[in-house]
This record gives sequence, C-alpha cells and structure tokens, in this order.
Amino acid sequence: MEIIETPAAMHRWAETARGRGETIAFVPTMGFLHEGHLTLMREGRKRAARLASSLFVNPTQFGPHEDFSRYPRNFDRDCELMRTVPVDVLFAPAAEAMYPPGSQTWVEATEVTQGLCGGHRPGHFRGVTTVVAKLFNIVKPHVALFGEKDFQQLRAIQRMVSDLNFDLEIVPVATVRERDGLAMSSRNAYLSPAERERALALSRALEAAGRSVAEGARNAAQLACAARFVLERTPGVEIEYVEAVDAESLRPIERFDRPVVVAIAARVGATRLIDNMVFTPRG
Amino acid sequence: MEIIETPAAMHRWAETARGRGETIAFVPTMGFLHEGHLTLMREGRKRAARLASSLFVNPTQFGPHEDFSRYPRNFDRDCELMRTVPVDVLFAPAAEAMYPPGSQTWVEATEVTQGLCGGHRPGHFRGVTTVVAKLFNIVKPHVALFGEKDFQQLRAIQRMVSDLNFDLEIVPVATVRERDGLAMSSRNAYLSPAERERALALSRALEAAGRSVAEGARNAAQLACAARFVLERTPGVEIEYVEAVDAESLRPIERFDRPVVVAIAARVGATRLIDNMVFTPRG
Repeated sequence: MEIIETPAAMHRWAETARGRGETIAFVPTMGFLHEGHLTLMREGRKRAARLASSLFVNPTQFGPHEDFSRYPRNFDRDCELMRTVPVDVLFAPAAEAMYPPGSQTWVEATEVTQGLCGGHRPGHFRGVTTVVAKLFNIVKPHVALFGEKDFQQLRAIQRMVSDLNFDLEIVPVATVRERDGLAMSSRNAYLSPAERERALALSRALEAAGRSVAEGARNAAQLACAARFVLERTPGVEIEYVEAVDAESLRPIERFDRPVVVAIAARVGATRLIDNMVFTPRG
Repeated sequence: MEIIETPAAMHRWAETARGRGETIAFVPTMGFLHEGHLTLMREGRKRAARLASSLFVNPTQFGPHEDFSRYPRNFDRDCELMRTVPVDVLFAPAAEAMYPPGSQTWVEATEVTQGLCGGHRPGHFRGVTTVVAKLFNIVKPHVALFGEKDFQQLRAIQRMVSDLNFDLEIVPVATVRERDGLAMSSRNAYLSPAERERALALSRALEAAGRSVAEGARNAAQLACAARFVLERTPGVEIEYVEAVDAESLRPIERFDRPVVVAIAARVGATRLIDNMVFTPRG
C-alpha cells in the first residue's frame, strides 16, 4: 500500500491511474478503523480497478467543545487493516497540507443540514462537505462509498455531489452492527463496559420504531414516539434528539406515506452516539 | 463548434478528450462577447489541445434588484465569434439544467470577498464561486482563463481553486481596453453616447493613480485619493467605491510597500461599471 501525504502527489497518482484507463474507488475515513470502514473498503474494491482511502481527522468538522484532540487514533493499526483489504493507496495528509494559511473557502449544503445533528453541531456539516469536496478533487474517484450510519452526512454529500456536478457515483453502504445491535463507531471506544450496555438503548429504540411500523403506524410521529419511549426508560442515556423525518430531504413529515428515517442522537456518559434506520410504509 | 446543453453530455465530452490524453482550456462567459472574451479564448487556444467555452447568464450571482433579466444576450452572434477563434465546444445549459429543483449547495470564499464589490453586492461572489465550481466539475479543464477586469472575481476563484484543491491552472489575462481607455464590458452596451464619454472617468482615474505612483506615492491612500479626485470632478458619475488594497488578499493596506490594486465601482447613469489597475512600488 502506497502512502501519500500531499495533495500534489495524490493528484499525480490519480492522473496516472486515470491515464491508464483505470477506475478509482474511494473511502474517506478519520481512521481508528472498524468493521464498518472495512465493509466500505471491500465494497469499493469490487467496484473499481484501484482502491484509494484517506485518513484525516478533519479539524473543521469538530466544534470548539467537541472531541477533536482526543478523537481516537492508531495509524499503524489502521494501515495494517487497510493492507488486508487491500487498499492500493492511502492519502494521509497533515492538517497544514489540507488547510494552509489563508484557507477560507467553504462548501455548504444549506437545507439538508438544518435539522438533526446539524441543529446541534453548528458548522459540523459545513466542515464535512468542505473536506469531502477537497478530497474528491484530490483523489479524483469514479465512485466513493459512505456508511448509512452517518445518515445526514450521506445526504449532505449526495446533495453536494449532485449540486456541484461532481462526475462520480456515491454508494451508500448499510450500517454494520455488533452482534447485539450496537452500530459500529470509532467513538464506541470511549464507552466503559456499563456504558456499552446502556448504549444498546439506541438500536433497541430503532427496533421499537420498526415494531410500530409492523403494527401499522400511519404517522411519522408514531415511529419517533416508539423510539423515544425506549430511550427515556433507559437510565444514563440522555436524549439529544429522536426524530422521524423524510428519508430524502430530511424535512419534517407528518403522514408516514414515503420512506422515513428515524434518527437518534444521545449521550451515554460523556460519549455522544448516533444511530438511524430507514422505514418504508407497507403496501 | 459543438454545442452541448447538459452537464452529463459535457462530462462525456471532457472524459473523451482526457481519455485521448488531450488537454482542455476553458473560458466561462455570460455571453454578449467582446474583444476581452476573445482575447481569453485565443490565449486558451494556445495553451491546450482543446478549447471549451461556456455561455450561461448565471442567476445566482445577480442580486434581486440587479440586471439579470435585461442582461444583454445575443446567442447567434456569440456563436459566430466563438467559431472565429475557433472554440471546439460550447457548453450552453438552460438555468434548469444548472439549478434543478432542490439545489442548495454553495461554495464561498469568505475573506477575499468581504470588501469592494463584495460589500455592495451581497451574495454576488457566492454565486460566482458556486457556478464556477460547477463549471469546473462539468468541463474538467486543465487550465481556465479569467480577465483581470473582474479583479475580485479572479481573486475569489484563485482562492477557491487553491482551497478546494482543484487540479487546474488559473491564467489571469490583462484587461482589454477600447482605444480611449474604457475597459471592455458587456455592460458598456447600456451606455448612451453621453454616458460613454463620462465613463472614461474610470480609466482616467486609474491613470491618475498611476501618476501618483510615478511621483513617488508611499501610501495606498494617496493612490485612492488621486483616483477619487478625477471621479469626483466628473458630473454624472456616482462613485460606489474607490479603494487601494493589497493586490493579493484585497485587504486594506496602509504603506504602499507591495503590489496594490486600485479598484473602482461607479454608476454612469443607471449603469454600474468597474475597473482596476495593479501598481507595484518602485525600486
């Protein structure tokens, strides 16, 4: 696996591959890889001749009181895991290579980022779409893969790709879960064993929303209520939001007459976790 | 000259050219071409195997009370002029092809757009950088050419290209002037003969700034004052701004110890005109 640290060298790699007529799949990451990332990479491996990944803990998507400085990092282990896929090239720039002095350009999807996490993490999605636009221009992929776990991020990136006419395909990949249902996340590493147990409330809340669908729920609010009920009964879980919104636009929706995403953000101890599931109305 | 109307078809054209190893030069325009545009195109012709241009009067860079609907248009004449260069491919999309319903993503250079026209045309440069980012993704050029006449636009696009890691070269091209000094602009078509005469005050004001440089001016304010004096003495010319700022960052500057751009915006009758010149301190 080749490791590249500068945008200019990555441009050369991409142009060489494209010049040979090779397609490029791309999986951007913030490292501390888990099975979710590896699933994205294996899927990317199948879809193109060359597989690129990136490892960059992007400072501009963290708020001033968020966990940027303590975000878990393990570069050597991440490289080992990528080699098992195998990833062909890893783009791993320093922060100064990505944001040299004078940097001032932002890319922002303004509507899809209004609610859910966007309402609680001001500037977060602006940081995400900006760094992903940069990475797309640097890596020049034909296809890029993103996990459904970060559902609002996926929708913001899909909007950006469509609105800015990037000539690439975004492939969403289903959330990978632990055997007991917990959605995989690098931030799960923060959880104590007791918190790890409580964190199951998120996936169980989503399962409860699913039962309300099976029982014939007709309004989005019924799905959200079913999920909220589970979370509120779990001590040590502090709800940030539980919402059932249009799965495309992420706008509030009343009637459950098209796909709805039930999205949750909650704190378990000091750790902020998110999870979601998409439900489609029955027949 | 091939005429292409959709982003998807333009992607295919660009990929075909690039697949053959051909380089692409690109000159985006809003049409109603004059010698300034043609100079950009001839320069582009020299710099790449293939020359692409675009004609799109971009609604998002006009304010609600600006001249979008009456902006001068003459598609057939523009096509004829492009064929004389010759331009290989013209991208001429409808507004709905560029901004389909749901479009919501903006690209914004936040600092370089603060003063000058940015202070008087809120949202203008956000519209410019957004449409140019889209056009770069659609046309996939190796080199793109922009006139120095729209100096703040040039700086905003240079920042965007650098900040978002577009793999292309921006070539600035000197302002083309009429024999008597008036900077060429599609908006000159709005001027009555009497206004056309008064409009010379802009280039004469810049020449006066140049004389203050020749006479040993040490402060940026001296350049701006020399220009302002000429404009204020011309009846029928209403100054919007006259400023002498750092030619790179476009920030206010006190000492004239590095390149300074003197930039003017003024109304002549109902027509808003801009002009500028860059001055370098002597020895």
